[in-house]
Amino acid sequence: MLMKTASQSLTEQLCARFAERIRSRLLGPGARLPSVRLCAEQQGVSVSTVVAAYDQLQAQGLVVARKNRGFFVRDAALNMALAPANKALQATKNIASAALDAGPDGLAPWMSTRQAPVGATTLIRGMFHKVSNKPQPGMGVFPPDWLETSFMPAAVRKVTSVSALREFSLQYGEPMGDSGLRRALSQKLSALNVHAVPEQIITTVGATHALDIISRTLLRPGDCVMVEEPGWAVEFARLDALGMRILPVPRRADGPDLEVMAQYCEIHSPKLFVSVSVFHNPTGYCLTPGSAHRVLQLANQHNFHIAEDDTYSHLAPEHATRLCALDGLQRTIYVSGFAKILAPGWRIGFMAAPPDLVERLLDTKLLATLTTPALLEKALAWCIDQGQLRRHAERIRTRLDAARARSVRLALAHGCTFAAEPAGLFGWVETGVDTDTLAQRMLDEGYLIAPGALFHAVRKPSTLMRINFATTQEAAFWKVFARLRDGVK
Amino acid sequence: MLMKTASQSLTEQLCARFAERIRSRLLGPGARLPSVRLCAEQQGVSVSTVVAAYDQLQAQGLVVARKNRGFFVRDAALNMALAPANKALQATKNIASAALDAGPDGLAPWMSTRQAPVGATTLIRGMFHKVSNKPQPGMGVFPPDWLETSFMPAAVRKVTSVSALREFSLQYGEPMGDSGLRRALSQKLSALNVHAVPEQIITTVGATHALDIISRTLLRPGDCVMVEEPGWAVEFARLDALGMRILPVPRRADGPDLEVMAQYCEIHSPKLFVSVSVFHNPTGYCLTPGSAHRVLQLANQHNFHIAEDDTYSHLAPEHATRLCALDGLQRTIYVSGFAKILAPGWRIGFMAAPPDLVERLLDTKLLATLTTPALLEKALAWCIDQGQLRRHAERIRTRLDAARARSVRLALAHGCTFAAEPAGLFGWVETGVDTDTLAQRMLDEGYLIAPGALFHAVRKPSTLMRINFATTQEAAFWKVFARLRDGVK
Repeated sequence: MLMKTASQSLTEQLCARFAERIRSRLLGPGARLPSVRLCAEQQGVSVSTVVAAYDQLQAQGLVVARKNRGFFVRDAALNMALAPANKALQATKNIASAALDAGPDGLAPWMSTRQAPVGATTLIRGMFHKVSNKPQPGMGVFPPDWLETSFMPAAVRKVTSVSALREFSLQYGEPMGDSGLRRALSQKLSALNVHAVPEQIITTVGATHALDIISRTLLRPGDCVMVEEPGWAVEFARLDALGMRILPVPRRADGPDLEVMAQYCEIHSPKLFVSVSVFHNPTGYCLTPGSAHRVLQLANQHNFHIAEDDTYSHLAPEHATRLCALDGLQRTIYVSGFAKILAPGWRIGFMAAPPDLVERLLDTKLLATLTTPALLEKALAWCIDQGQLRRHAERIRTRLDAARARSVRLALAHGCTFAAEPAGLFGWVETGVDTDTLAQRMLDEGYLIAPGALFHAVRKPSTLMRINFATTQEAAFWKVFARLRDGVK
Repeated sequence: MLMKTASQSLTEQLCARFAERIRSRLLGPGARLPSVRLCAEQQGVSVSTVVAAYDQLQAQGLVVARKNRGFFVRDAALNMALAPANKALQATKNIASAALDAGPDGLAPWMSTRQAPVGATTLIRGMFHKVSNKPQPGMGVFPPDWLETSFMPAAVRKVTSVSALREFSLQYGEPMGDSGLRRALSQKLSALNVHAVPEQIITTVGATHALDIISRTLLRPGDCVMVEEPGWAVEFARLDALGMRILPVPRRADGPDLEVMAQYCEIHSPKLFVSVSVFHNPTGYCLTPGSAHRVLQLANQHNFHIAEDDTYSHLAPEHATRLCALDGLQRTIYVSGFAKILAPGWRIGFMAAPPDLVERLLDTKLLATLTTPALLEKALAWCIDQGQLRRHAERIRTRLDAARARSVRLALAHGCTFAAEPAGLFGWVETGVDTDTLAQRMLDEGYLIAPGALFHAVRKPSTLMRINFATTQEAAFWKVFARLRDGVK
């Protein structure tokens, strides 16, 4: 609720609130502001205050008024110089051309008339934008207090002695990454039945960097890539920025839709399939052994590689089905990281690759960033070697199970259903209303939610939202949610 | 010198030595091994030992014998699966098509017949390969003992308290990079007359990552990029891997060859010029104000951007001429890092960009790696804020001046001349013999040198070598150098 203060009028506060959202891209280019009347009602201010605030936003060049239609965020509000001007168009093409109902030119018939999708990079900004001190249901990671341990400071002390600093700071680290960490990862992987010697493992700046390196190494612009839908928006955006053609494969409870994949293979000869087998984001689905086997058969038959993003590995049992375990890292590349379990800020990820790809992937890593920070890799190796990380992950899993049970109960009690059986970190929740609209209302109350549209390669309205079970176990959020949802209906 | 031991015969040792060089790419695909007779002489072993060792290498699939020509490293020795097979060919095309004497199709007439250049990524591997405990003349950074300080451990202690770890490890850092560091960098830049607010500064995983982000943001595959020649091989290799067409601009004492640049602009409409203004690598040249002015005129006239790589900034006086200072960050992007002055292992670099490019560059950073490690950025900020880094840089400069004087004296005394007036970290030395051949001989004595061929966009024989003044100030190296050089003559 806005409150008049000595230093700032209500108009100024309202204007600043929208300006901040536009700058942080929580309101993307082309987004419509609430009508003056609705905004006044939502914010508890007079219509004239809203009119004055919208006028200020227009004067600042952030929004435009369209006759009889309302106020819209200017395309150029942030990116007046986003040349080349045809980039957005190209992005549209890459994504849209993937549709199965493609014509002979590979383009979907509905493509030419529809609007360009909201730039997907917009979505990432929200991840880093603190909208309030409340637990954030849209977050992709655990809240910091879940990750707090006594062993991490101990690990850091080990690697920051004067002599350790000399060794790990004053020269470049090893090209493949710290060899101690790679040995620890090799052991850790073998517990998952993924057998990789340290010489097959390359450390990276988070799992994101690993996926980027894989794309840059295996693909050339214009190549076709299969991705799961719903799926992780950053992956769509990265592939799009690299000029790849995205082929969205519907993700089912047991795995990717194999019929759709088979059709893509016949028509488009994709080079790569990017997949989250275990606790898929956003659904929480886990791949079944049968589905895994058939995916690998398809890969062999049509000669494509698979990047298996096992980001949620630490939250899953070791026996969960992973493509890399079945395939023995022949045409699969295993990717994971430690942002979800230990330290998002350390930015440590890694990949385990088929022996014949290691050199090429390493070349790409070196050209992109040279080495990665050895100091933090060494500290992580210590956490793994001491068994601390394993025990920590067990504690987190127990805590998450309890949180999930509470969150699910509350969600159901507030009229939601689950589009997928609740599991892992995320819930995929049916709200019954447009979640893009709901997301804007929730922001006014200090909650950032993840609307379903974010998880589609081509953005379209959705009534789903992804929740983080760790941050939705309190009734306070669900009360606000239910009130605002009923207002949208 | 090889010495027979209980566990390993001379043959095994010799075989292992060559195998290691091939694996670390110090002997690249297609390279010729010394003749059996010469090798026996160089290594002080019998001809039959060499024959046996070469046979073993052949049995391991690392080399092939060609009748009457000798032994060559197999193209497939390391990269049997370097599919797509036409990648090397494509690389050749990209680089070669840049020649000024290009025909109407943009390809140089001599291109189709010449050999593919040695994969440039090979060069980077050498940087990380420890060939002995001796000071390495080919190194690109200071030896660790030069970088040792008491303030770095203090800085690290500041950021590794339990509460600091919680803040900087347990959540993603800020998208643009730590705001404290960006404030410190903004101040630091203003002393160089480069005026950038913290909101124009983005931190990266070393300067390499910044240059990568710039290329990915401003260029599309097939675009033309001007680079200085001689220049930094990693930059050539990265642009090539991204599918760009490289236009090499001769670097003169006062700056890039403006006539060549003007011709490129007319013919190829390049989108970007990548340049090291201050203490250019490998020559040590510094840009003059007049040349800077004309480069910027050309950029305005032909509408290209400039990435100014100021990696050696800390070794130069503040008043050195920088394009970004003249241009006011309009079409220039400033890039630098801290690998040369503080901590290669921390992998901290940054760029300061024109306001209208910041959002696009940030998008690329987030898609490639998400954020960068806040912990180390915070420690660096402390080093800058306390004035420690500035004082450390002054000490390093004084020490480097003395080392350079000694190194130059020794080089001249051993019959070398300097192709460029000695300045900064590197000397560009005329040896009078082929430095690729010399480099292989020097390896036998435990020295890794940087042959001139490495610094050319299209690899060709060179009698130049780059030396690091910090590691060539002892007579021991020059004695070995002179002896082996005289053997090559």
